[in-house]
Amino acid sequence: MTDPTRRAPLSADLLPASGAWRPGDPAGDRKFHTFATERSFVLEGGGSLRDVTAAYETWGTLDADAANAVLVCHALTGDSHAAGRSGPGHPTEGWWDSLIGPGRALDTDRLFVVCVNVLGGCQGSTGPSSIEAATGRPYGSTFPVVSIRDMVRAQAAVADHLGIDRWLAVVGGSMGGMQALEWGVMYPERVRAVAAIATTAAASAQQIALSSVQRSSIVLDPRWRGGDYYDAEPGDGPHLGLAIAREAAQISYRTEQVFNERFGRKHLDPIDDRFTPWQRFDVEGYLDYHGAKLVRRFDANSYLVINRAMDLHDVGRGRGGMERALARITAPVLTLAIDSDTLYPPYQQELIHETVASLGGEATHVEISSPDGHDAFLLESDAVGDALVPFLHSIEKGDR
Amino acid sequence: MTDPTRRAPLSADLLPASGAWRPGDPAGDRKFHTFATERSFVLEGGGSLRDVTAAYETWGTLDADAANAVLVCHALTGDSHAAGRSGPGHPTEGWWDSLIGPGRALDTDRLFVVCVNVLGGCQGSTGPSSIEAATGRPYGSTFPVVSIRDMVRAQAAVADHLGIDRWLAVVGGSMGGMQALEWGVMYPERVRAVAAIATTAAASAQQIALSSVQRSSIVLDPRWRGGDYYDAEPGDGPHLGLAIAREAAQISYRTEQVFNERFGRKHLDPIDDRFTPWQRFDVEGYLDYHGAKLVRRFDANSYLVINRAMDLHDVGRGRGGMERALARITAPVLTLAIDSDTLYPPYQQELIHETVASLGGEATHVEISSPDGHDAFLLESDAVGDALVPFLHSIEKGDR
Repeated sequence: MTDPTRRAPLSADLLPASGAWRPGDPAGDRKFHTFATERSFVLEGGGSLRDVTAAYETWGTLDADAANAVLVCHALTGDSHAAGRSGPGHPTEGWWDSLIGPGRALDTDRLFVVCVNVLGGCQGSTGPSSIEAATGRPYGSTFPVVSIRDMVRAQAAVADHLGIDRWLAVVGGSMGGMQALEWGVMYPERVRAVAAIATTAAASAQQIALSSVQRSSIVLDPRWRGGDYYDAEPGDGPHLGLAIAREAAQISYRTEQVFNERFGRKHLDPIDDRFTPWQRFDVEGYLDYHGAKLVRRFDANSYLVINRAMDLHDVGRGRGGMERALARITAPVLTLAIDSDTLYPPYQQELIHETVASLGGEATHVEISSPDGHDAFLLESDAVGDALVPFLHSIEKGDR
Repeated sequence: MTDPTRRAPLSADLLPASGAWRPGDPAGDRKFHTFATERSFVLEGGGSLRDVTAAYETWGTLDADAANAVLVCHALTGDSHAAGRSGPGHPTEGWWDSLIGPGRALDTDRLFVVCVNVLGGCQGSTGPSSIEAATGRPYGSTFPVVSIRDMVRAQAAVADHLGIDRWLAVVGGSMGGMQALEWGVMYPERVRAVAAIATTAAASAQQIALSSVQRSSIVLDPRWRGGDYYDAEPGDGPHLGLAIAREAAQISYRTEQVFNERFGRKHLDPIDDRFTPWQRFDVEGYLDYHGAKLVRRFDANSYLVINRAMDLHDVGRGRGGMERALARITAPVLTLAIDSDTLYPPYQQELIHETVASLGGEATHVEISSPDGHDAFLLESDAVGDALVPFLHSIEKGDR
């Protein structure tokens, strides 16, 4: 029962303590907008930040009356690179690359698409790994709690900067859908349509429970160092804790059916003659791969902060409940459910749909059939596109 | 983002490094049988053990022809205390107390019920926390990999010791059901009936994945010390890693529905005015409670060993596949499924049932309806009893 060799590849890489993008790294397709330079950006939870930077990317051309802009909102470990290849500054291909581009569902021949790395993130926007101007040091353990509403307010600053008074649509899946809903509630006059995919009006107890255990894994890692690990030597960051959090999350993103079909009981290391404690089944290798992959491009503190923001998500908080909050939305709302999603089950999107509809709002609901569970919002781009295209067309044509 | 106060109660308790029962602790209702004293007990995975002790408990009286004995097999964190109160030597009430006793489903006025702490366990049977006679030190990191089949062979040694040639029935849920199936396959002549509840013929990829992440949490805990932590000062054992493993498991044992109804978004600490990173929702308090509770009575290395045995469980391994393995069972087989169980979903028990039936075996299948998920095999004792009683009666009467 010695230290498992399965983990060796990760620590042997001598990764930097954080996978965050840092000033000086290639900007790639990022642009930056810095705000709150004169007075603080006060956060919903009581904290505040100065000199907030939002990293964002854009695709297509903003038309003369700034009427063709679509905001795409990313999920927990996404970033502003929603479309485009991997390359310098972009460790991964765009997470919705198949949906955004010329002739695609979000057609950049016609639309101006924007994606902003969330507040608290680690790919160019201000987050725990950013240098705090007042101290010249990374925020680390001092970074305040942010909420989905804070993320949306930071995106609104980017919209102001770009001269976009009103989005044609705000679109997002999972945590991105939380932002899309909050846009509709917080800024009804600035949103012509909301598309909320595989998301919820308020995090459920099970979602909080799963998040909580993931956060605990990070905190358990001695290399997390109470959140102040940015000076650690390469290979000495909280990689294992973050990888384990990702592995736990990855299970919840997929389905038993897919795991059975893809991995079954296949094993990477032989288990027929002698058993060792650390022989790996294929599915364990798969989890390790996803854990190690995230560590290369993400920051453990950002995971804690953003994951917590998701738990705190409740459109009804401080607004007299969910129904009164959703009543503020004036835009048509598309909800999209995935039949096999056990993490954000269809009943959550149905509840949004039924509430909006019962309040007299324009509500469209689509359930797509997929074996892939929650991740189908990323994987089933054809089906997601098939739902988005007619919805966006009806908005563009002014049918509603 | 300082070290979360939520964890403080656990470490402040100064628990011993392991929650294992140790020689010198009150025996409670345990009896002990030691075997493999002259030659080693060779394990399926290639390891071996000397001086193996099995701790067991019994209820009722063995009849003159030893024909009324029922073996009850426990799950991952269970032990031999299947019935009876908590008290000295028994940190918890019997895990099936409502099913075992005079007039209960396993009626000890009539039946002789036996439960054996599994090999690799930590409540009196030989496991990683036991002292190895050859060294005078706890096995720790040197404890070999055990399989469900090894556990069953240790139980067979207890049966020999008690003079039980043939069990009236072998009954178990979850990992206990794995043992019940293996009894039927390994010792068909020694089992008159098999009752396999909320279990599987072979661990699925998702089950392995969930187990793997739980093991990783334990290994990540620096206080695990590569498995050799038994000399650690009180409070300095791998409590957090084990607690987190338990918390992750606990989520999989229950259902989203129950979590929603019981906890929803209620919170232990106010989140209305200021947000801190570690304010707890009720469901987090619930998880912490279960994590801390397990740590007091369990051993982290036993969790690793037993959890791994579950992953390795595959009745077909080395036997030409599942069908050929199940064909060895001559006893009637009762399978019991729980409709809301997402960890051991009903299709797994249906597969066992259909395979046994298609091979011409006597097969009975019952699905019980419960909101409680996998843990219903412990919680829904009335429904479990309603399935067991007629099955056992038909065996006792010799109807089959």
